[in-house]
Amino acid sequence: TAVRMSMKQQSRNSHPYWASMQADIEAHIKQFITIKEPLVVFEPMHHLIINAPKTTLPALCVAACELVGGERHEAISAASALLIMEAATYTHEHLPLTDRPKPEFGMNHVYGPNVELLTGDGIVPFGFELLARSDGGENSERILRVMVEISRAVGSRGVIEAQYRKAMGSRSDGEEMCHVEEIRRVVEKYEGGLHSCGAVCGGVLGGGSEEEIEKLRKIGSYVGMIQGMVQRGFSGSKEVDEARNLAIKELEFFKDKEVDAIKTFLNV
Amino acid sequence: TAVRMSMKQQSRNSHPYWASMQADIEAHIKQFITIKEPLVVFEPMHHLIINAPKTTLPALCVAACELVGGERHEAISAASALLIMEAATYTHEHLPLTDRPKPEFGMNHVYGPNVELLTGDGIVPFGFELLARSDGGENSERILRVMVEISRAVGSRGVIEAQYRKAMGSRSDGEEMCHVEEIRRVVEKYEGGLHSCGAVCGGVLGGGSEEEIEKLRKIGSYVGMIQGMVQRGFSGSKEVDEARNLAIKELEFFKDKEVDAIKTFLNV
Repeated sequence: TAVRMSMKQQSRNSHPYWASMQADIEAHIKQFITIKEPLVVFEPMHHLIINAPKTTLPALCVAACELVGGERHEAISAASALLIMEAATYTHEHLPLTDRPKPEFGMNHVYGPNVELLTGDGIVPFGFELLARSDGGENSERILRVMVEISRAVGSRGVIEAQYRKAMGSRSDGEEMCHVEEIRRVVEKYEGGLHSCGAVCGGVLGGGSEEEIEKLRKIGSYVGMIQGMVQRGFSGSKEVDEARNLAIKELEFFKDKEVDAIKTFLNV
Repeated sequence: TAVRMSMKQQSRNSHPYWASMQADIEAHIKQFITIKEPLVVFEPMHHLIINAPKTTLPALCVAACELVGGERHEAISAASALLIMEAATYTHEHLPLTDRPKPEFGMNHVYGPNVELLTGDGIVPFGFELLARSDGGENSERILRVMVEISRAVGSRGVIEAQYRKAMGSRSDGEEMCHVEEIRRVVEKYEGGLHSCGAVCGGVLGGGSEEEIEKLRKIGSYVGMIQGMVQRGFSGSKEVDEARNLAIKELEFFKDKEVDAIKTFLNV
């Protein structure tokens, strides 16, 4: 079945647990991006980070950290970096390029394309900087490991590959004619890859064992599949059901732990 | 005096010392960026990194490392990351956006704007990944420090700010009407900031003292001023002379060391 969907960002249902974490993460970011000179640079950067659509990714990172016995503050910088990377991606996805379909209806651009391009480019190093600076000196190996994970997830085998696929599947009128299977493949790479990374980062920073971290990699991927498909209007689909069942199976590994927070991401 | 200059990339004079380092750095990068699946992503990435205009920045990083007694291999990943970041910047600077001046004459785009945008976005995390993975386990604090330096130099207080200034100074016919003073300010932020960062990274990775690193920060900034002004056709200007004299003064601090390599960057 072909499904006609709009590119327009859909709002997500929010869970109180995510909202509380999102608030913590945003407060953490705001400490680092005070609006300072040069205003012409920092004002759009602040705006584009804070106004990017919220996703479950940063909260999942913190939840994974807590699941393996870590504390929230240990994952907050990685969660912030993930939120920042998503904001940069979102900004560049909506740039009006000369070879792109017409801007989608309802998309409100506060800044010109040139400023949005530059700001997106400035946001990514800011995310890496925030993460690199989060080390007090005793944790640097874990942070480097997290950096490799994030670089890969937002890079050429992750988000960028998913964007290529999406760009190649999009039509010139700004809408997409997609098969569920094509959507599933994009979601697997995109939200799947990012959430997998988010869960791994939380596990690494929370001091999880290698076995726990590999379980989290799978669970994160399923969470991304669920959230990505739900966001695209496929909440009752078999893809979502399958991902949820697989995630629940992997979660059995953590049966002695507090799994309620992670379960909220499975929409159960 | 107003100077009319073309944006077209000018070729730089090359020095045998730089050419030898450049070859080492490119060989190092090629180990990491083999052309692999997905080809649609890696092929343009490979092309855009390898074909970006060469600058003195990566070689300066290695020279600074050697100046403080480090070995070339200790700085090679940071030098590679710097080359990669410059390639990403160059790619995005030449994107045909709807609000940009017409593409400059003679600029040969192998890929469409969408692919160049995505590839540029993919190149930056690749640079951070290459750097994060370069640690064998004993050097992670130095690498995190270098990451903070690079993030800042390529981010909102460095290259991005310089690009804003440049964008605001450019005219709609794709050429620039600039005063030397305006050019000097852009070069100070842009090439000055990058070379300052490159020299610091080399100093940190080569195990330099804090005093040596701060001297290198200044020297790098002067090198960037010289190279940036020379590249823009101001090789005999008083700005270049001043920067060279200041650099030579700072270099006296290293009078017991082997300073010939660093001197090649002063065009003396």
